[in-house]
Amino acid sequence: MKRTRGPTLRTLGELGLLRRLRARTPPLPPDVLAGIGDDASIVRTSPGLAVVATVDVLVEGTDFRWEWCPPEAVGQKGITVSLSDVGAMGAVPKYALVALALPPEMPLQRVDGLSRGIWETAEAARVTVVGGDISEAPSLVLSLTVIGEGEAERLVRRSGGKVGDTIWVTGPLGRAAAGLHALKAGYRITHSGVTGRRRGRKVSLQARKALWETIQAQLYPVARYREGRILAEARFASAMIDLSDGLASDLSRLTEESGVGAQIYANRIPVDSHTKQVCRLLGLDPLTLAVGGGEDFELLFTSGADPVSIQDILVRNGFARPHPIGEVLPAENGLFLVGPRGKREPLLGGFEHFR
Amino acid sequence: MKRTRGPTLRTLGELGLLRRLRARTPPLPPDVLAGIGDDASIVRTSPGLAVVATVDVLVEGTDFRWEWCPPEAVGQKGITVSLSDVGAMGAVPKYALVALALPPEMPLQRVDGLSRGIWETAEAARVTVVGGDISEAPSLVLSLTVIGEGEAERLVRRSGGKVGDTIWVTGPLGRAAAGLHALKAGYRITHSGVTGRRRGRKVSLQARKALWETIQAQLYPVARYREGRILAEARFASAMIDLSDGLASDLSRLTEESGVGAQIYANRIPVDSHTKQVCRLLGLDPLTLAVGGGEDFELLFTSGADPVSIQDILVRNGFARPHPIGEVLPAENGLFLVGPRGKREPLLGGFEHFR
Repeated sequence: MKRTRGPTLRTLGELGLLRRLRARTPPLPPDVLAGIGDDASIVRTSPGLAVVATVDVLVEGTDFRWEWCPPEAVGQKGITVSLSDVGAMGAVPKYALVALALPPEMPLQRVDGLSRGIWETAEAARVTVVGGDISEAPSLVLSLTVIGEGEAERLVRRSGGKVGDTIWVTGPLGRAAAGLHALKAGYRITHSGVTGRRRGRKVSLQARKALWETIQAQLYPVARYREGRILAEARFASAMIDLSDGLASDLSRLTEESGVGAQIYANRIPVDSHTKQVCRLLGLDPLTLAVGGGEDFELLFTSGADPVSIQDILVRNGFARPHPIGEVLPAENGLFLVGPRGKREPLLGGFEHFR
Repeated sequence: MKRTRGPTLRTLGELGLLRRLRARTPPLPPDVLAGIGDDASIVRTSPGLAVVATVDVLVEGTDFRWEWCPPEAVGQKGITVSLSDVGAMGAVPKYALVALALPPEMPLQRVDGLSRGIWETAEAARVTVVGGDISEAPSLVLSLTVIGEGEAERLVRRSGGKVGDTIWVTGPLGRAAAGLHALKAGYRITHSGVTGRRRGRKVSLQARKALWETIQAQLYPVARYREGRILAEARFASAMIDLSDGLASDLSRLTEESGVGAQIYANRIPVDSHTKQVCRLLGLDPLTLAVGGGEDFELLFTSGADPVSIQDILVRNGFARPHPIGEVLPAENGLFLVGPRGKREPLLGGFEHFR
């Protein structure tokens, strides 16, 4: 860009831009139950029924690198991000629109892998690709719109968290971030396993398994829309958000929308053994990844319901046992993390574009 | 891109890619009334009610140039393309999702103009921006999803054209293409009028007016969703499509989906005086622009209804008088243009990405 006179987007940051755009939106009409500022929008179409819609954009270089992302993974991630947003409302994803801006010199093999990733993930979620658009660009941009449905009264927004609610996550955190660090350190997964670039250092079989699992979590994330739906159906979630930008960022969005504060206990945040192993190998702190690392796509929700019932309904339906990690407090308490030795510190971390 | 071994997207072309992607889509479930291959998708949400959704992507350099596009125009065009698609189904556009990939060094002034263009066009159409997504990219990419509503039984697809139907357009063609040629020739519009770069040649006041009107049509297109809705409500359109890629391309899509042929009369294609004037100034053929030039966003529809009633209903509602330009024939007749002297030639022209 030639013109850089005056303030640019970098000055404002992603959150500043979001605030600016949100301020432009006139008061929502009564049929719009959730607008900008939630995982997805909710619009009431007929009595009781609501349509839930969300869009996510993935950019080559910014959101993924061909260097370590197979085309199938790019496609899967492109649609998973939106499936996850619809799932975080407790809605059933049903339709997808696929918009692609592609470089003319993109090998057909890559185009095919990309579309396979999108279509197969859609099919597994019983989502029909109903339309899309194609344009030309210097580098690949994917924009995936997913439209879902739900009963208006059962859908879960970010804004329903209540003081005294327990804060839950549906699965282990920091795994995708560990995988990203492993990729950045030069590890790759191939058909035959993990290839590493750590010179002169032997990586144990166990560590290879851990690298494989975390890289897999980074490249092929899975959206928890089924879990979200079950929690919403049972009215077990008062507020819900998917963990795309990291616990610290996403919890602060939820508490801001709910007008509450929260405390999280470090030793209750689930971190699996693979993540810990990769952290040991790479010299990283698992807690930092679990709090600040994004793209795990687990659900974060608040609930006033009996903990046993919550765990029971997910386990009974074949899903992982969710973890209670903290509680909702009045807004004036702010947002903090209780360390392993009881020390309280502000909950910080997470990702923002343009900065 | 470094890897260019084997076939690339350029080999396939946009239509080839579309065919390839469409082939991936499994048979549509019964709630999907229109999928890939129409202006927008139609899904039945509850008895009688349908949700109509479409997405369009605009890329800096490919679909617009900052050099001659004010940021407001980029925003307006970004959403107009999708409003037009929803309108071409005869649905009422209601909600929009705005996905943006932006360069960090983009001046805030430009960001503001862009969002003003989107939000003001949305507001004029009574469309609420309910969500979106932001990412970072080397150059601007906009992806606009518009969701509309309609009665399932009254929505109009591309596939309903019947032999014997008259073919109509809602307004003059070639205007946006004339404006594009004017911009490419160096003409610009400013607050004070048209500035030209034609050295040593005096441009008449009338020609300046024509340049202004056609450039305006190119930069600030208007979607005909209100007209589309009226035609659908009255059940006057058997098939409908918006003219985004040009009469030849878009008519061939409609006839292909309808399984019919068509003939168009060159001397019935409406071309306004401004377009003719700009063509004279730049040495262009108005008919070529009207047949091959895109982005007029007028509606093209087929109808078996009485011509007087069709013209009457639009005029009575304050819209321009539509023009009958040809008729639907059996498929074996193909698609052709009857020239001013009665000579028949195949209808060719239009735009395809990657080629």
